[in-house]
Amino acid sequence: RYGYFGRDSPEVVKLMFCNISGCLTEGRIFLSASSGDMISINTRDTAGIRMLKKDGVEVFLLSSCLNPVAQTLLENVSKHLECEVLCVGEKPAKDIEPLIKERTLSWKDVAYMGNDEVDVDCLNMAGLSAVPSDAPVVAINGAKYICKSRGGKGAVREFAEHIRLQKRKAKSQLEQDRIDLASS
Amino acid sequence: RYGYFGRDSPEVVKLMFCNISGCLTEGRIFLSASSGDMISINTRDTAGIRMLKKDGVEVFLLSSCLNPVAQTLLENVSKHLECEVLCVGEKPAKDIEPLIKERTLSWKDVAYMGNDEVDVDCLNMAGLSAVPSDAPVVAINGAKYICKSRGGKGAVREFAEHIRLQKRKAKSQLEQDRIDLASS
Amino acid sequence: RYGYFGRDSPEVVKLMFCNISGCLTEGRIFLSASSGDMISINTRDTAGIRMLKKDGVEVFLLSSCLNPVAQTLLENVSKHLECEVLCVGEKPAKDIEPLIKERTLSWKDVAYMGNDEVDVDCLNMAGLSAVPSDAPVVAINGAKYICKSRGGKGAVREFAEHIRLQKRKAKSQLEQDRIDLASS
Amino acid sequence: RYGYFGRDSPEVVKLMFCNISGCLTEGRIFLSASSGDMISINTRDTAGIRMLKKDGVEVFLLSSCLNPVAQTLLENVSKHLECEVLCVGEKPAKDIEPLIKERTLSWKDVAYMGNDEVDVDCLNMAGLSAVPSDAPVVAINGAKYICKSRGGKGAVREFAEHIRLQKRKAKSQLEQDRIDLASS
Repeated sequence: RYGYFGRDSPEVVKLMFCNISGCLTEGRIFLSASSGDMISINTRDTAGIRMLKKDGVEVFLLSSCLNPVAQTLLENVSKHLECEVLCVGEKPAKDIEPLIKERTLSWKDVAYMGNDEVDVDCLNMAGLSAVPSDAPVVAINGAKYICKSRGGKGAVREFAEHIRLQKRKAKSQLEQDRIDLASS
Repeated sequence: RYGYFGRDSPEVVKLMFCNISGCLTEGRIFLSASSGDMISINTRDTAGIRMLKKDGVEVFLLSSCLNPVAQTLLENVSKHLECEVLCVGEKPAKDIEPLIKERTLSWKDVAYMGNDEVDVDCLNMAGLSAVPSDAPVVAINGAKYICKSRGGKGAVREFAEHIRLQKRKAKSQLEQDRIDLASS
Repeated sequence: RYGYFGRDSPEVVKLMFCNISGCLTEGRIFLSASSGDMISINTRDTAGIRMLKKDGVEVFLLSSCLNPVAQTLLENVSKHLECEVLCVGEKPAKDIEPLIKERTLSWKDVAYMGNDEVDVDCLNMAGLSAVPSDAPVVAINGAKYICKSRGGKGAVREFAEHIRLQKRKAKSQLEQDRIDLASS
Repeated sequence: RYGYFGRDSPEVVKLMFCNISGCLTEGRIFLSASSGDMISINTRDTAGIRMLKKDGVEVFLLSSCLNPVAQTLLENVSKHLECEVLCVGEKPAKDIEPLIKERTLSWKDVAYMGNDEVDVDCLNMAGLSAVPSDAPVVAINGAKYICKSRGGKGAVREFAEHIRLQKRKAKSQLEQDRIDLASS
């Protein structure tokens, strides 16, 4: 080895995209007679997202344009988790790519969590990707990490801890490389 | 074989009827002090219904007149799933038959999903029929397909995929018949 | 045997008392920021209660005065199940006995479903009594029938079917007695 | 032994602190489009807290300042359980200690129930401490008692019964000490 031409930043993930339905929730939506619709999320997952943001990861929540979820509900979710919510179509990659380019990043720098067929492309392209344990087989096959937890039951927290671990490993690898370089 | 006298259309299912309570939901209803009642449905099942409609199946949701569910709640469910809701009595077949005849179809062209004793007749008569895995024995005995998933937990999606598969099989069988006919 | 001095009516149960919390529900109450509290019940249990009422059993729902449940919520439950709701204290038997006497019945004619320590007396005294499978041991020991289903998941339906069966058995026994008497 | 210099009061626990999220609830929060947020609690746990208060234990509920829970929801929880709700930061011990000192008590007199990393200090210091069975390993390691029940499913009731038992044991030990002293 005659030099180190690694990236300046050792952080592997700078952007995270996470499906609301089926990842952050169990996939359930509560329909009401007179008041608005509801979803339920787990505080453990909320803590996981907060953890990532503290580590400098920008987190976007994804909602499918196909599922008619009230705009006011999405606004409440966005406010509760302090993350922007992005509405995506049948090809989420198309809606996500502009955000990656804007930040002059590539798919390698992205963590993606999905739970259905439409997510397969992104699960394949993202540097780190995960599905909850109860995702359909087609999504599981596309993911780099399969959570032990189910959607809405800690899967997002589990993936957040996995991302953190990978970031630490990358950092320590970079330091090791520098030491190797200095002593070579 | 001296000719082919099959149906013009190879599609086996043109109409689907699906119970809301216990199929699309877990059978739970949330009663409130001041705001209206609620039910919860799964986005995976919503996607299953959307899938069928895309394939040209007309989908009706059934609600029992015996269960007092607020009209406004049923309207919200209807709007959310983009399906008409039909209120049925103790003999759902009576309420359904006019709709089948109107479309000059027969029970063979119908898919039915139910989960209790009152559904047994329809489960028997429909060309394709299913119950969620947690249906009572009397309903299970009447169904042609028993879902692995429970009500409100993906049973409707599972039946939708089963219907799709049967439609594809029927189509390919029809093509095979035509080839056989041409070469006979 | 020299005669039949049985009761005029062969029906073993004329009155049923059923705890709302933990029998009809899972024991959960949903607390809200701005709208009222909620509970969730299962349509299968609702059907069980309707079944009993059709068979001529008068059904009362019990709510503990100790648990602060909004009056408006209880009114909604009462209306939804078409049963009167009775608020009971630490000794439910005291609140129930006047109703039994008013109807010139005895505890033998009563079916009781409870799920906690306070219910033990009534579980012991009632002609038929049951607990959901997830009741604490102290309540299970007092019950004559232990449901396979959990509270809020079909336990009331299961007990309703058990009551029905006992009523039929009693009826057929009475007829047998009459035949025996006539042929003696 | 030449005398008994024990505490005047044989009661081991005078103050209890219990996390709302994950102990009293399953950790879920219901987000709504138009009406306020909701949480769900179990009447069995409510009965456990009532039991402790009857035995003279002062009970405080803890809510993390980090989780944005609507003030009106916390007020409703406080009213429903007839306990004060305390908002705690990343170091709950700091927020709790003034309350212990005010009552001239020490950590030995405190029972603490938590379910995450931030609770570890308090779980270690409290005379009695517990976690629900579904708490993360880091919290389980800090607790003196691990409940068989999960959060929102009776864990608080179970801990309340454990506290009661310890109080009775302490009382009977004190009496034994007095007898030993008198007969020495």
